[in-house]
Amino acid sequence: MYQEIHEAPAAVERLREGGRRALQRLAARWRRDPPGLVVFVARGSSDNAALYGRYLWEVHLGVPVSLAAPSVVTLYGARPRLQGAWVVALSQSGRSPDVVTFVRAARARGAFTVAVTNQERSPLARAAHEVVQMHAGPERSVAATKTYVAQLTALSLLAAEIRGDRRLLRAHGDLPGQLRAALGVEEAAGDLAQRWARAEACVVTGRGYNYATAREAALKLKEAAYVAAEAFSSADFLHGPVALVGERFPVLVVAPPGPTKRHLVGVVRKLGRRGADVAVLSSDPVLLRRVPGSLRVPDGVPEELTPHVYAVPAQLLAYHLGLLRGTDPDRPRGLRKVTRVL
Amino acid sequence: MYQEIHEAPAAVERLREGGRRALQRLAARWRRDPPGLVVFVARGSSDNAALYGRYLWEVHLGVPVSLAAPSVVTLYGARPRLQGAWVVALSQSGRSPDVVTFVRAARARGAFTVAVTNQERSPLARAAHEVVQMHAGPERSVAATKTYVAQLTALSLLAAEIRGDRRLLRAHGDLPGQLRAALGVEEAAGDLAQRWARAEACVVTGRGYNYATAREAALKLKEAAYVAAEAFSSADFLHGPVALVGERFPVLVVAPPGPTKRHLVGVVRKLGRRGADVAVLSSDPVLLRRVPGSLRVPDGVPEELTPHVYAVPAQLLAYHLGLLRGTDPDRPRGLRKVTRVL
Repeated sequence: MYQEIHEAPAAVERLREGGRRALQRLAARWRRDPPGLVVFVARGSSDNAALYGRYLWEVHLGVPVSLAAPSVVTLYGARPRLQGAWVVALSQSGRSPDVVTFVRAARARGAFTVAVTNQERSPLARAAHEVVQMHAGPERSVAATKTYVAQLTALSLLAAEIRGDRRLLRAHGDLPGQLRAALGVEEAAGDLAQRWARAEACVVTGRGYNYATAREAALKLKEAAYVAAEAFSSADFLHGPVALVGERFPVLVVAPPGPTKRHLVGVVRKLGRRGADVAVLSSDPVLLRRVPGSLRVPDGVPEELTPHVYAVPAQLLAYHLGLLRGTDPDRPRGLRKVTRVL
Repeated sequence: MYQEIHEAPAAVERLREGGRRALQRLAARWRRDPPGLVVFVARGSSDNAALYGRYLWEVHLGVPVSLAAPSVVTLYGARPRLQGAWVVALSQSGRSPDVVTFVRAARARGAFTVAVTNQERSPLARAAHEVVQMHAGPERSVAATKTYVAQLTALSLLAAEIRGDRRLLRAHGDLPGQLRAALGVEEAAGDLAQRWARAEACVVTGRGYNYATAREAALKLKEAAYVAAEAFSSADFLHGPVALVGERFPVLVVAPPGPTKRHLVGVVRKLGRRGADVAVLSSDPVLLRRVPGSLRVPDGVPEELTPHVYAVPAQLLAYHLGLLRGTDPDRPRGLRKVTRVL
């Protein structure tokens, strides 16, 4: 897990080179015949990447996006009408049976299907019309890290290609360096892990593009450190779950610069009044000063690409917390690399 | 909260009578001009009702469904293309500002908009083309209970009207009696609350239609009992979060008869091998025998309507756990009846 966290910069570089042709071909197809609906289908970490894609594509491409519930197809045998839709499946291994089944059913109902996968010869790649190879290199840790960052990158690169958005395309060139800088947060992540080493539960919250970061951070904390970490969009958090937070309850707030910041500063203040044990993941100097012991992320990343960079400190926190709590982050109990659910 | 849990049977009866005309008018419109996409928009408990609607409508009506991320519109100012779509907003109070803003934006982009609300004169009711009044009566508890059941009922009645599904329409007539029978689980819910009184974290899992039940149960446990209860679709649960579960970790499995049962029996077995402290919410005699101290739900409810009935024991469990843990289930800390997030 540790090694693969450190491979994210190289994975993004390889995807930018190796994936360009497939992404440009897809973008040309989209512009010729834009879909009326996009459906992302994924499980686990890949589903968190899909959640990012949902926000990004709705905002940047103006298309309504749905995150599939595969069991509608696999358990109930439904066949939703999908003519004119794109179905984009995300799976590192390309071998999640329910994701493959969903793609086959969607293709049969008229959808154009795309597989974003690390495995070009997988059942998922064979089931879809087009394949975007992630070029992330083999992933051996059960907890996905570099492939999550690569999935985010595939989705943001494709949106940028579709819009012909030169600013966003260029910004991808800075990502490997920013990811390397984010790896420098390791000492602070270790300190925060010390502070939270005895926590049995915690909350991670964020909003907009980084709601995905909150979810992925919570998943890594569960997988690698066995902490009951739950993620909330900070809007939903105030609609009920905030009741959970009492004195010294640990809360990680993902607060990058951008339109979500004002709301999140309010959340931090509210949590502070309740005596919660808050840390922020941010590049904002005011917020970092106000909340000591937080995780400082490199500045200058456009908000759309902050989830790629903010994932790294979250992964490092989960890894160090796992070590301190005596788990083996590489081999979480009860998990295998490919989960076979239908 | 206690009183309102017990008002669910009467609320469903009133909705069947008072809501019929609006639902039939909507069904006629759907049949004349079926949408290519449905978008549900809601927050909190209403969003869990929307999750149920998503499964039910995709399976029964064959329409793709998306659960809106309101901040795409409210924070990022996006305007997804929604011609030919129905946008269905769920809000007890009709006053969640972000839900109202989303409906206005969707209407401006060509969607047909429906408000399912308890408040006919609310901003949400004024913003939408059509209103389905829930007739659930005033809700004073901060934690929604009877209105959640009423929202499920509005969504299942509308699906049945659209399909002209006489079996499902008739089955709604049995709901008040089945809800009253479910209230009889109170003693068992009190016993289970005793058993879990000291838990700081737990997991609730279910699949398909009752993934919504798992989410709503977890939300009630957080709001009313301050337990860090997290819900997972049992498929996602095995893709990572199961690592969290060690010896004596409490897990509630929502396992009604139907196509999800086989998978959930496997989950119960897997959890048992890990020494988890499992209880099931089920009417299945074999499963109830295998897992002592579980919550027995009345039998004979068609799977599509089990979420309505299964919500009640979950609400009672949260209520009793709250009492035992010394919280005030009627007034969770940090919450108000209407959450003002934009």
